[in-house]
Amino acid sequence: MTTKELFDRICRKRSFLCVGLDTDVKKIPPHLLNEDDPILAFNKAIIDATAEYCVAFKPNMAFYESMGSFGAHSFEKTIEYIRERYPDQFIIADAKRGDIGNTSDMYARSFFEHLKVDALTVSPYMGEDSISPFLSYAGKFTVLLALTSNKGSQDFQMMRDADGEYLFERVIRISQTWDNAGQLMYVVGATQASMLKDIREIVPDAFLLVPGVGAQGGSLEDVAEYGMNAHCGLLVNASRSIIYADNTEGFAAKAAGEAAAMQRQMEIALRAKGLI
Amino acid sequence: MTTKELFDRICRKRSFLCVGLDTDVKKIPPHLLNEDDPILAFNKAIIDATAEYCVAFKPNMAFYESMGSFGAHSFEKTIEYIRERYPDQFIIADAKRGDIGNTSDMYARSFFEHLKVDALTVSPYMGEDSISPFLSYAGKFTVLLALTSNKGSQDFQMMRDADGEYLFERVIRISQTWDNAGQLMYVVGATQASMLKDIREIVPDAFLLVPGVGAQGGSLEDVAEYGMNAHCGLLVNASRSIIYADNTEGFAAKAAGEAAAMQRQMEIALRAKGLI
Repeated sequence: MTTKELFDRICRKRSFLCVGLDTDVKKIPPHLLNEDDPILAFNKAIIDATAEYCVAFKPNMAFYESMGSFGAHSFEKTIEYIRERYPDQFIIADAKRGDIGNTSDMYARSFFEHLKVDALTVSPYMGEDSISPFLSYAGKFTVLLALTSNKGSQDFQMMRDADGEYLFERVIRISQTWDNAGQLMYVVGATQASMLKDIREIVPDAFLLVPGVGAQGGSLEDVAEYGMNAHCGLLVNASRSIIYADNTEGFAAKAAGEAAAMQRQMEIALRAKGLI
Repeated sequence: MTTKELFDRICRKRSFLCVGLDTDVKKIPPHLLNEDDPILAFNKAIIDATAEYCVAFKPNMAFYESMGSFGAHSFEKTIEYIRERYPDQFIIADAKRGDIGNTSDMYARSFFEHLKVDALTVSPYMGEDSISPFLSYAGKFTVLLALTSNKGSQDFQMMRDADGEYLFERVIRISQTWDNAGQLMYVVGATQASMLKDIREIVPDAFLLVPGVGAQGGSLEDVAEYGMNAHCGLLVNASRSIIYADNTEGFAAKAAGEAAAMQRQMEIALRAKGLI
């Protein structure tokens, strides 16, 4: 997929919502526990209920890995299901990987060739040669952690050098000089919306993946105000506030309602910027 | 396990070698490809051949994940095999994880409860609340990336603040103030041995996991000279130089020979420092 195609879908669906599939077997509605694969059954229901209102799905690997090879199987089946039923959806594997070159090669092969996702989140700590194997896949995106939505983002990401540049700014600036930098996106937490204006000065064009709206308390209005560019440039993720909106047999309908409410807010933001 | 117990084993085996199980189906001897699980068959042979000369095994998750749920199964079976046959070995899952708190909880559960490894490598980029869920497991170790062995370590880890402190130094210094900091170890590449002296001033007691000896060109003598402390404090990892030393039916014997050669060098280093 290209960013142009992604923007076309955003305009068509009047949404830049990404639904996070952070599926925890301890939190899904109890009646699903009788299914052969409760995680997959839950995901299918959530995907069917919310696909109309979103342009992307983001399964978080940690939730699947915590169940060993059984979870890895649920993850693969979830990706297959989205690919078959909703081929227009952008799929981001939230794995926060990053390793030395030959190992990153293995991860890139795993996620882009074997699992066929569109994008993968990656930690920048190990630098260019840990990231370049991902960027060598044409049509695939690498989503670098920049400024995250958690409290610990203050510990290292906000370190400043002698010129006053923050580490997260350096990550964005330096990575934009790498080969195939057009395939980079960045994670910027919604709880850090005030920083979005400065970030847009460093990287006006890239897409930003924005977690932290909803359960973590970030504001969609602020994110759109400071982060939206001429081709939207935003994918706003919500996980818990949508997928765990309800714990009864009506959970999917409730998830659809939450996703629809976010889509309506996003439509307003897109219109306000004159993009649709 | 405690660091005291780890040091006892190092003294008993006169070795601080960690064998990296970076098992790539494209690189293992061709005759193993007829096995039901070639990866597991290779690992068992390498483990049997080298266990006498090492104190730790470090499977790198990327190599297993690249094969999907089948690889996850090989990984689990490898851990089980080490646990059953060689219960004295320290097992490090090299996964370089790290995510927001509730997700790190899932990873911690996955690696420490489900897989029962002794230690896990983690990226520090997201700060304290991304690491603390791992540190809450008593008797388990969290190995933070500090100064890695690859070229890209220069990009961000060597960023300096206005006082001249490097990012990797800040990672070590700040993390030592966290709860249960005694359960932290740090990755410091052997290719950066000249930095070990400064690192030992910040963190005299912690164990350092040192990759980059062997295929990546780091020197064991330099690492021991600058990094060893009164309880050794080093686990030196070698992967490719041992496990891919030979590609014929004699691969395991050749791996044993390479591991034995490193053990002899390590014994000399331990004696030189008066630890055995």
